[in-house]
Amino acid sequence: MAAWPGGTEGLRYGGDYNPEQWPEEVWHEDVALMRRAGVNMVTVGVFSWSRLEPAEGRYTFGWLDRVLDLLGDAGIAVNLATPTASPPPWFSLAHPDALTVTRDGVRLTHGSRDTYCVSAPPYREAAKRIAAALGERYGGHPALAMWHVHNEYGTGCHCDHAAAAFRSWLLERHGSLDALNDAWTTAFWSQHHSDWAQVTTPRATQYLPNPAQVLDFRRFLSDEMLGCYREQRDVLRAFTPDVPITTNYVLGGWVPVDHWKWSAEADLVAIDHYPSEPGIAAAEQTAFAADLARSWAGGRPWLLMEQAAGVVYTARRMAAKAPGEIARHSLQHVARGSGGAMFFQWRASRGGAELWHHGMVPHAGPDSRVFREVAELGDTLSRIPAPPPAGRVVEADVAILWDDEAWWALQSPGLPSAELDYLDAVRQAHRVLWRQGITADFAHPSHDISGYRVVLVPSLYLITDADAANLRSYVERGGTLVVSFFCGVADEHTRVRLGGHPGAFRELLGVRVEEFQPLAEPVPLAATAFGVSPAFDRAAAPGQALATPMIPAFTATVWSEVVHLEGADAVAVYPGGGPAITRNLHGAGAAWYLSTRLDDDGYTRLLAAAGLSGTDTPGVELVRRADLVFAINHTSAEQPVPVHGRDLVTDAPVTGTLGPGAFAVVRAD
Amino acid sequence: MAAWPGGTEGLRYGGDYNPEQWPEEVWHEDVALMRRAGVNMVTVGVFSWSRLEPAEGRYTFGWLDRVLDLLGDAGIAVNLATPTASPPPWFSLAHPDALTVTRDGVRLTHGSRDTYCVSAPPYREAAKRIAAALGERYGGHPALAMWHVHNEYGTGCHCDHAAAAFRSWLLERHGSLDALNDAWTTAFWSQHHSDWAQVTTPRATQYLPNPAQVLDFRRFLSDEMLGCYREQRDVLRAFTPDVPITTNYVLGGWVPVDHWKWSAEADLVAIDHYPSEPGIAAAEQTAFAADLARSWAGGRPWLLMEQAAGVVYTARRMAAKAPGEIARHSLQHVARGSGGAMFFQWRASRGGAELWHHGMVPHAGPDSRVFREVAELGDTLSRIPAPPPAGRVVEADVAILWDDEAWWALQSPGLPSAELDYLDAVRQAHRVLWRQGITADFAHPSHDISGYRVVLVPSLYLITDADAANLRSYVERGGTLVVSFFCGVADEHTRVRLGGHPGAFRELLGVRVEEFQPLAEPVPLAATAFGVSPAFDRAAAPGQALATPMIPAFTATVWSEVVHLEGADAVAVYPGGGPAITRNLHGAGAAWYLSTRLDDDGYTRLLAAAGLSGTDTPGVELVRRADLVFAINHTSAEQPVPVHGRDLVTDAPVTGTLGPGAFAVVRAD
Amino acid sequence: MAAWPGGTEGLRYGGDYNPEQWPEEVWHEDVALMRRAGVNMVTVGVFSWSRLEPAEGRYTFGWLDRVLDLLGDAGIAVNLATPTASPPPWFSLAHPDALTVTRDGVRLTHGSRDTYCVSAPPYREAAKRIAAALGERYGGHPALAMWHVHNEYGTGCHCDHAAAAFRSWLLERHGSLDALNDAWTTAFWSQHHSDWAQVTTPRATQYLPNPAQVLDFRRFLSDEMLGCYREQRDVLRAFTPDVPITTNYVLGGWVPVDHWKWSAEADLVAIDHYPSEPGIAAAEQTAFAADLARSWAGGRPWLLMEQAAGVVYTARRMAAKAPGEIARHSLQHVARGSGGAMFFQWRASRGGAELWHHGMVPHAGPDSRVFREVAELGDTLSRIPAPPPAGRVVEADVAILWDDEAWWALQSPGLPSAELDYLDAVRQAHRVLWRQGITADFAHPSHDISGYRVVLVPSLYLITDADAANLRSYVERGGTLVVSFFCGVADEHTRVRLGGHPGAFRELLGVRVEEFQPLAEPVPLAATAFGVSPAFDRAAAPGQALATPMIPAFTATVWSEVVHLEGADAVAVYPGGGPAITRNLHGAGAAWYLSTRLDDDGYTRLLAAAGLSGTDTPGVELVRRADLVFAINHTSAEQPVPVHGRDLVTDAPVTGTLGPGAFAVVRAD
Repeated sequence: MAAWPGGTEGLRYGGDYNPEQWPEEVWHEDVALMRRAGVNMVTVGVFSWSRLEPAEGRYTFGWLDRVLDLLGDAGIAVNLATPTASPPPWFSLAHPDALTVTRDGVRLTHGSRDTYCVSAPPYREAAKRIAAALGERYGGHPALAMWHVHNEYGTGCHCDHAAAAFRSWLLERHGSLDALNDAWTTAFWSQHHSDWAQVTTPRATQYLPNPAQVLDFRRFLSDEMLGCYREQRDVLRAFTPDVPITTNYVLGGWVPVDHWKWSAEADLVAIDHYPSEPGIAAAEQTAFAADLARSWAGGRPWLLMEQAAGVVYTARRMAAKAPGEIARHSLQHVARGSGGAMFFQWRASRGGAELWHHGMVPHAGPDSRVFREVAELGDTLSRIPAPPPAGRVVEADVAILWDDEAWWALQSPGLPSAELDYLDAVRQAHRVLWRQGITADFAHPSHDISGYRVVLVPSLYLITDADAANLRSYVERGGTLVVSFFCGVADEHTRVRLGGHPGAFRELLGVRVEEFQPLAEPVPLAATAFGVSPAFDRAAAPGQALATPMIPAFTATVWSEVVHLEGADAVAVYPGGGPAITRNLHGAGAAWYLSTRLDDDGYTRLLAAAGLSGTDTPGVELVRRADLVFAINHTSAEQPVPVHGRDLVTDAPVTGTLGPGAFAVVRAD
Repeated sequence: MAAWPGGTEGLRYGGDYNPEQWPEEVWHEDVALMRRAGVNMVTVGVFSWSRLEPAEGRYTFGWLDRVLDLLGDAGIAVNLATPTASPPPWFSLAHPDALTVTRDGVRLTHGSRDTYCVSAPPYREAAKRIAAALGERYGGHPALAMWHVHNEYGTGCHCDHAAAAFRSWLLERHGSLDALNDAWTTAFWSQHHSDWAQVTTPRATQYLPNPAQVLDFRRFLSDEMLGCYREQRDVLRAFTPDVPITTNYVLGGWVPVDHWKWSAEADLVAIDHYPSEPGIAAAEQTAFAADLARSWAGGRPWLLMEQAAGVVYTARRMAAKAPGEIARHSLQHVARGSGGAMFFQWRASRGGAELWHHGMVPHAGPDSRVFREVAELGDTLSRIPAPPPAGRVVEADVAILWDDEAWWALQSPGLPSAELDYLDAVRQAHRVLWRQGITADFAHPSHDISGYRVVLVPSLYLITDADAANLRSYVERGGTLVVSFFCGVADEHTRVRLGGHPGAFRELLGVRVEEFQPLAEPVPLAATAFGVSPAFDRAAAPGQALATPMIPAFTATVWSEVVHLEGADAVAVYPGGGPAITRNLHGAGAAWYLSTRLDDDGYTRLLAAAGLSGTDTPGVELVRRADLVFAINHTSAEQPVPVHGRDLVTDAPVTGTLGPGAFAVVRAD
Repeated sequence: MAAWPGGTEGLRYGGDYNPEQWPEEVWHEDVALMRRAGVNMVTVGVFSWSRLEPAEGRYTFGWLDRVLDLLGDAGIAVNLATPTASPPPWFSLAHPDALTVTRDGVRLTHGSRDTYCVSAPPYREAAKRIAAALGERYGGHPALAMWHVHNEYGTGCHCDHAAAAFRSWLLERHGSLDALNDAWTTAFWSQHHSDWAQVTTPRATQYLPNPAQVLDFRRFLSDEMLGCYREQRDVLRAFTPDVPITTNYVLGGWVPVDHWKWSAEADLVAIDHYPSEPGIAAAEQTAFAADLARSWAGGRPWLLMEQAAGVVYTARRMAAKAPGEIARHSLQHVARGSGGAMFFQWRASRGGAELWHHGMVPHAGPDSRVFREVAELGDTLSRIPAPPPAGRVVEADVAILWDDEAWWALQSPGLPSAELDYLDAVRQAHRVLWRQGITADFAHPSHDISGYRVVLVPSLYLITDADAANLRSYVERGGTLVVSFFCGVADEHTRVRLGGHPGAFRELLGVRVEEFQPLAEPVPLAATAFGVSPAFDRAAAPGQALATPMIPAFTATVWSEVVHLEGADAVAVYPGGGPAITRNLHGAGAAWYLSTRLDDDGYTRLLAAAGLSGTDTPGVELVRRADLVFAINHTSAEQPVPVHGRDLVTDAPVTGTLGPGAFAVVRAD
């Protein structure tokens, strides 16, 4: 594995630089402005394929030579991209069988980006060829600091190439057609396959698709794209064994890759993060994304590869970032371990599909608030050390489980409620901690989570037996697990675990759920005598009441269940008296069960009862990164912060308060 | 025709049983649980094609032999299904021309169910072949009680096979291309066909389709699927002349078959009923469905073939059935003549597209409220006699007209208001009667309706001349007809009847409607002097006022009309003074016209004025079935009921009240 | 160019007449009713292709001969249509390559109308052939008054014919592939074309399309359809050099043609106008449409070719026109220069896709309010002189800029706000003037606008350098320009103008906009000291305050901007103090800038401050057409009107008031 240059070299600062969109004379202005802004790395070539290889096998590298020389001479490192996210139009004409086919059978045409099938041999060959050409030509260029393979892998296809690759993948996964039939429960609706040729991608069909097929297709897509990534990575590695290689994840509501699996294959994890709501919600989303990235990296470096300079992209409009928000969001990432702060893109395009996507240099030019903030941020970042290049850079004693497969499975049709929402559940868990100043890690159910005091399990619809055993063992050894509704009900093939829900956790939670009862209207929960008594001692036997009483009680929405106690105590009950929240002492630990959805306040109080609470400092963020403390005031008022020392950025003392929108970085005592 | 076994053998109780989804050891537990639950019939094989014929022409009946033997030995009758609603994957690969093509020309792929074209010869042949194989092997099996052909016929297709079949059907229906051109008004928009080859199914086109073409396509689909049914039925009949044969209708917002026409071809009518709203609305929908089924059966047996045990499927979530609701819904069907109560399915699937569809044995297993209620229901049903096997089992002196073709026509684009809603109108008519304890039949406009005191005509957009004459004759002989707005305006080819609306009923109603004026906002109607006078005598001359005065007056929504009186009296008027509700004495009867939509209260009062009223007993249902009275309390409070006698179920006396959620069945005095 | 017969011959009155939908005996009744109604022209043959040419090359003109003779004998002129908007079914079967292909690649089927590709050679040939056949046969018919080519051109296609034609058009427009790549900014997302064969229509692609490609495709479609029109026009012209030729525009939310360009090619401009909202909004829309048509005609004749007799087509329902509304809407058009008032259609169809589209003779027949109003309108129109056949018939000293290309560009995805709405902005500008009795013209940015005192520029997203110079010159010479937000930010290839917004107008407006900040919630604007002072003198130097003070201040929605003053004065400011509305004295004139969206009241007050105000006479319309004054009272109360004289219609004196719903036409003093 190649080394990430961070550490001793300071934080990376810059963005996607697409010089091919501009006349060459602008390049010189660009470099001058980059230097003014403190930019020290740019990502080049992401969408340059048609410029680099204007006809099959004919390369025009001259312009890129000049760009890299210019950047190198200015001391700006280059994160060089392979341009395979956007094959040129000539490729589409030469290889129509490599164009994406939708589930309806529509073969798409070029004219946007990402219109290819990752399983099509001509695409795979062309991608390796251009990667090799870049590796060969620029592997030794002094400006080269990193390889950026592809961009935001995330396409799917239903063509015959894809179907063939899916079948191979299924054979690998399931071992035999019989095993596949069993895993997919093809006995239902007469879907038994008697020959591999009958197995297809989930193309358009008459009515509900098979959820196990759909889930396996999601897994396949992730693995198939990962195969593409690996091929390019290996090509580049051969040229430059010491240059780190990565690819950038797109985050959002449709999650195309298994982040845990992918992260193991990159030298550093890179994410693109665009919040979808303005204001404090954007800060919450930012901390969430950064914590995910750090967790995926697992002690190796990670980098915020893309963010937007001037705006937050909401569903209806591009909302302007408030003054200072560019810096605050960037600092959030850095505080959580990012090796820098990068943007898409350096200079806002004047045309093309994303002409209204903002840039570090906006359409208005450098005489603008955005560019001034960008330049100021460059200065700020230059004063903050990079995080340690490896190891645990941010301390957390709580983890939230994250599993892309559970999310995929919850995007199936036919679930008991249309209001089941994986991302909402996980974000709520993170949000209530963030608001109390508690930094959380994310973990996969298979991970060693023994180091965490508390582990939250939101919306983990499916889980393997092995992973369920891992969680059980965690509790046995003294951990506290807080499991939310509709977790552990299915196995890895989305088959329901029988005999009472939540099948995988029934014994651990000491409950048996007889049926689900999704709610149309909110219902109140009442605390039990157990729940309200203050005499709780964690190690006490079942029946002992709680230290943090459950008053006032809760409001339940979305979901309810008929819960039977089989060892657990009821902490709060539904109007009819049935248990709604329970606690089960198991081994040396405790397993809590929340059989409904609470609002943020209720969920916060539940976590407090489970022994997890912080300081309610709304809008003020405190993160400890190795030997530094980052304090960020997201509010428009002065706020107290428990921070004292000299601010590395301003070199001024911090004495327990932060001005509106201000931040500070001090050495930990 | 074969005999329905009901009658002397008691009510049928059970559900779809899909043993192929479970290991063979579970089958024994199933049979034991069935016996515990009082199950006496199960539907087997609905989705077993791929298990029964794993390759073309190769049959694997062994497992089904064992299932039928096991059931037979336990005294559980088998309703054996032909599995043709879900051809196996091998069929799709062997016969791609038999896969469904959408109106956009997308050829669907297997992976769900029902992905075939009923007009494709390979499908027709394969369906007959598997039906014959089943008939041959199991025709003599002692457990065989009934044949269940296919499942929920309801697909359409736009492939070339379908187009060819549509042309043949059109030639049969219209006799000549000239007649077709005339019926479809192809003079509009230059659609004149000069050759049969030009006639197609309503495939995707540039703008609005031809409504007569669309309507004929709906008729064709119904007839074409009926042809499939008949073929299988005849195959099975040849093997077992005495075993009744049926198929089950799916009810809902897209109605695929002409129920009157189909019901004439089945030995018993079978419906699948899944309410779409929880609470009392579910009970209303249940009574509605059951009255439809009984009416379609027309004095022959009918059976509730599917319902859900634990839940009501609403648009956003699966709402839990309240305690006892499983039994109350089942009793509603039985009270209205169903020969039993069946469910989909016996055991909830652990995988597949409907893994969250509930079962009589839920995922939690038999130790569950649902199974306990299921078992209790089995006991209850065993104490209630089956309805008489033939003849009029439920008395009703009011009928509501039902015509699938009128519904299809009202699903056209381009109508004067997007708020025209066939199902809403018919359900309102039924609902206001149900709430007053009035049991209604449904009838087709061509039926002999002379036995009904009052006949309601909601949303009958189109009608033939002959059927209009039938209704006129009904009134002439003394009947009371209540016609709602937008009825009788078109002929059977959706051609508007000219000269004033409602063309088919103008003379009968004594009105001429000059124009429609759909409403954006509600408007109040005022009763006329005629409408408010209490001195009404049905046989009086026009001008004589009503016995049940129209005070308070009405609120009109959705629709209004400019009505001219041509013999009728105005009962209520629009704000401008124009007639809104009219009554016309015609022959020995009366024909009422309601030119707008009233709310339930208003519509109830209108029917009262027309001489039709009952007792307002909200949530309490009373039905007389032959010599029994069924009383069901759908509310959560004790309710008075005009019922006295010994309850057949509990053997306890009923003395004029029913406890919350309770029901009773007593012999009529 | 042929002469429009208007002028001396009086106003045209009638509608689309489709005798082929009716038996021949009805034709005689039709002509008798037309005479009763004062109809003097009908449009014949719009959808008659399949009747005229039942097989390729075989014509059946006999029936049309009889129709034209019958009409001619009755003195009713014929506007003879070429039927090319609806090829017959035989055409589809003979030329499947001429059927429309959607962007998804779906080839549509006949069964509606307009299912053809205007770029397909077989279609072009067939269209010319039928036009020639009509020209030859009827060019000399005495009833022929006008040619009506096609109907509502408005289709697009993505087939290979279309793609080839698009490439030719692009070569013509851009001159070279390099220029195309530059104009489309294909450097973004690797879309560089290295060969013309790679250039396609914007077919379905993976993600956002290229907005410049999409815009050029809209331009191409307009030009391609115009090519079709020209071909037919030239064919007909050869037969009848003196008969005027037109085609009718469909108005609505998807605008298919460049009206300025097309209007130059027609002998008279013809529009079809169907308001989409009832009540006063319908009147506003009518005035808007009529002003557009008059402006497009540019001093040549224009004609309202279609309107609906009885109804307003809203999204949810067909709302009845109020009594007299048929006449008032017609009078609005005539007052604004229409050479008559025509309807779709003469007799409501009894079948076909538009069977519920109203007619002058409704389904109820002539004994109906609608027909009586139609007949009365015929009488009314016969008393009003036709407008002068050429020249400026309606005086206006204000113009609103209209540019179809700017609208097309604003229908792109990826703009900064989903609430940008071209039509809403232009309609608001027109509406606030209409409500004050100010008649406005529309103009293209390239037009000579020197004659207008004030010119409004709403939502002109893109503009060429030349057109921007034209507007600058207008202000320099003394004009007042009021520019709204998001105007002039892009060039004609939708490339953003750099260096600060609004690029094309920065200097003229004396502002530099640094960034856009779309609004989620309304914000209040405060007037500046400059804005509130009453001491304004138009010719004063910058800094001098306004004559019409800005109190109370404004409410801003949808949009805001960070505006820097570079010469302009701030008239109103955002809460943070940044300029929101500015005025810049430039040359002898003034250029106002509105950087947000105001409500109608605010916009009205802004225009007043800019020197443009009228009389607030809600619902009363006053238009001067040459030597006549038209006054229309759209309200249901008597209203004062500043009109005195003898009403040409009633021959009664008008003395300063109009009764509810009444109108009058008097000679100007």
